[in-house]
Amino acid sequence: MKAARIYAEKDVRVEDVEVKEVGAKDVKVEVAWTGICGSDLHAYSHFVGIPTEEHPISKRQAPLTLGHEFSGTVTEVGSSVTSFKPGDRVCIEPNLRCGECKECREGNYHLCRNSNAAFIGLADDGGFAEYCVMEEQYCHQIPDHMTLEQAALVEPTAVTYHGVEMAGVKAGDAVLVTGAGPIGLLTVLSARAAGASKVFVSDVSKERLALAETFGFVKTLNPAEDDVIGTIMEDTNGDGVDVALECAGVQPTFDTCLEAIKRTGTVCVLAIFGKNPEINAFASTIKEANIKFSLAYSNIYDRVINLIASGQIPAEKVVTNKIKLDNIVEEGFDLLLNDKSQSKILVSAK
Amino acid sequence: MKAARIYAEKDVRVEDVEVKEVGAKDVKVEVAWTGICGSDLHAYSHFVGIPTEEHPISKRQAPLTLGHEFSGTVTEVGSSVTSFKPGDRVCIEPNLRCGECKECREGNYHLCRNSNAAFIGLADDGGFAEYCVMEEQYCHQIPDHMTLEQAALVEPTAVTYHGVEMAGVKAGDAVLVTGAGPIGLLTVLSARAAGASKVFVSDVSKERLALAETFGFVKTLNPAEDDVIGTIMEDTNGDGVDVALECAGVQPTFDTCLEAIKRTGTVCVLAIFGKNPEINAFASTIKEANIKFSLAYSNIYDRVINLIASGQIPAEKVVTNKIKLDNIVEEGFDLLLNDKSQSKILVSAK
Ligand SMILES: [Zn+2]
Ligand SMILES: [Zn+2]
Ligand SMILES: [Zn+2]
Ligand SMILES: [Zn+2]
Repeated sequence: MKAARIYAEKDVRVEDVEVKEVGAKDVKVEVAWTGICGSDLHAYSHFVGIPTEEHPISKRQAPLTLGHEFSGTVTEVGSSVTSFKPGDRVCIEPNLRCGECKECREGNYHLCRNSNAAFIGLADDGGFAEYCVMEEQYCHQIPDHMTLEQAALVEPTAVTYHGVEMAGVKAGDAVLVTGAGPIGLLTVLSARAAGASKVFVSDVSKERLALAETFGFVKTLNPAEDDVIGTIMEDTNGDGVDVALECAGVQPTFDTCLEAIKRTGTVCVLAIFGKNPEINAFASTIKEANIKFSLAYSNIYDRVINLIASGQIPAEKVVTNKIKLDNIVEEGFDLLLNDKSQSKILVSAK
Repeated sequence: MKAARIYAEKDVRVEDVEVKEVGAKDVKVEVAWTGICGSDLHAYSHFVGIPTEEHPISKRQAPLTLGHEFSGTVTEVGSSVTSFKPGDRVCIEPNLRCGECKECREGNYHLCRNSNAAFIGLADDGGFAEYCVMEEQYCHQIPDHMTLEQAALVEPTAVTYHGVEMAGVKAGDAVLVTGAGPIGLLTVLSARAAGASKVFVSDVSKERLALAETFGFVKTLNPAEDDVIGTIMEDTNGDGVDVALECAGVQPTFDTCLEAIKRTGTVCVLAIFGKNPEINAFASTIKEANIKFSLAYSNIYDRVINLIASGQIPAEKVVTNKIKLDNIVEEGFDLLLNDKSQSKILVSAK
């Protein structure tokens, strides 16, 4: 079958590979759609997140097939698989877990001590391929009225909904999201689904803000032109937002989040920072700020599936392009690295 | 009466002043004991925290009588005071509040918008004096079996117990406290009272650690000699502590707190940082760390009084000296700035 495999920095090859054999606990999925994630771009640009020695859970190392945001149809199941049968439509929850460490036993499998935040599609063969074979525990059934495009968006939406839950967003809240890339935009939609009444989003890219405008309920702010904090304070009676969700990961947006929150407010960091930020400790003390760091998700996939299937999170709105697997490097990775008007790109092997 | 008034940096004068007139809502307290706080030392050394223009709530400015950790006996009450009568023994909850802003109305009077974290004894005349006159709302009755020395320790203990509650310390928890100054030591005792089973405390001062040793239940760690993180990990089965309480306020201890907590653990900052710390964002993300900033306290004074009166928090153990008001500069401020074996010093005008 065809698969996009990463060998090294800037070296992703679409090539012919053998499909893995279906073990007793495994499910074989014919991949429908796979989204390109920021971590795929990081892997492509800097070869980070890809094991160069055998990963303790997957037992694999580079070259590996990328792609962790995907959906498809079951074509074959192993002898001990009971939850799935051929024809079932699924989306994949790709965080690798050992199932045995303290975190796994306590339900925090996204913090598994033996995984180190590794994913199918980074530390094991993933979804930029015609087929993917994985243990059944990584698959979730999707409802009939959910499209396979929507199903490919469950993974990044789960990242954002987990952040929104960690931050404690409640109905009626005012929320700021810094950064209107795909994670920022899905965070905006997740905050709305959690009940946020006022949602501000900031970004320096007019194209990204324009996409956010199409959601209909968002107040967009461009720090290059607007007084971000002044506007937020004016629109919240001088209180500030209840929650700021940091989806940009640079010092100025981190500072904006801390300035924007109300006393006792929460900043939840979903972004990965390239450089460690400094924290204004006195301002944080005076506000009794809470700063939380969010990583991936656990135990929320079925709820996120419901939220997308019901239309409460119209995740498909962040898709700006659909491309063929053959063209993933030029029309996917390279385009996303250069063109900030692109948001989520879905890839199909068909 | 005699009072220790601050005029400027390094200029505190014990001098004769008029006692304020007792208004309708006021209580006049004959001061018994007043503790010297780190913020008194800051005011003395750098003249910070003292209004040089009229404070919006107290309507006062320098020179002002210092001292906000105090106890005493009511000698006179205003015409509309109903909760107190002469002879009542009280301790003072000194955080100034307007009673009208959103924070005050919602019970977060320690975050009052018009106060800006101002206190009786910093932005209004306080307890380093023979008498103090203040509104009755700032006074709390103490039980008969509580000493007036203990009552003077309610204020700093409330700071630490609030931090422990903010951090969510639960019975059975493992806790690290960085810094064994008076706030660090009271945090240790507060964490124990909240049920912490394993309490580690780190400091570079042997004298301070020796005082912590007298509590009987503490594991003391000196980063100059001990492998702090190694020891904590060994004693917690490799998990790390549930909560780290940062009472030192420098980069190395902040880093230690983040390293010491378990996955999903909490760092609660009680210290005031002289320089903004940098935060290891990746380590925080991988752990889903929570970082909370704690300021003063609200709505917990009566519980803290109970905890000290019952012996659950033996706050009196942190007292290393009792001195006379006449000698407050040399035997109080100057000694504390130079001698790290001193912890809490209580002052009496008698
Ligand atoms: Zn991803
Ligand atoms: Zn595990
Ligand atoms: Zn104090
Ligand atoms: Zn107020």
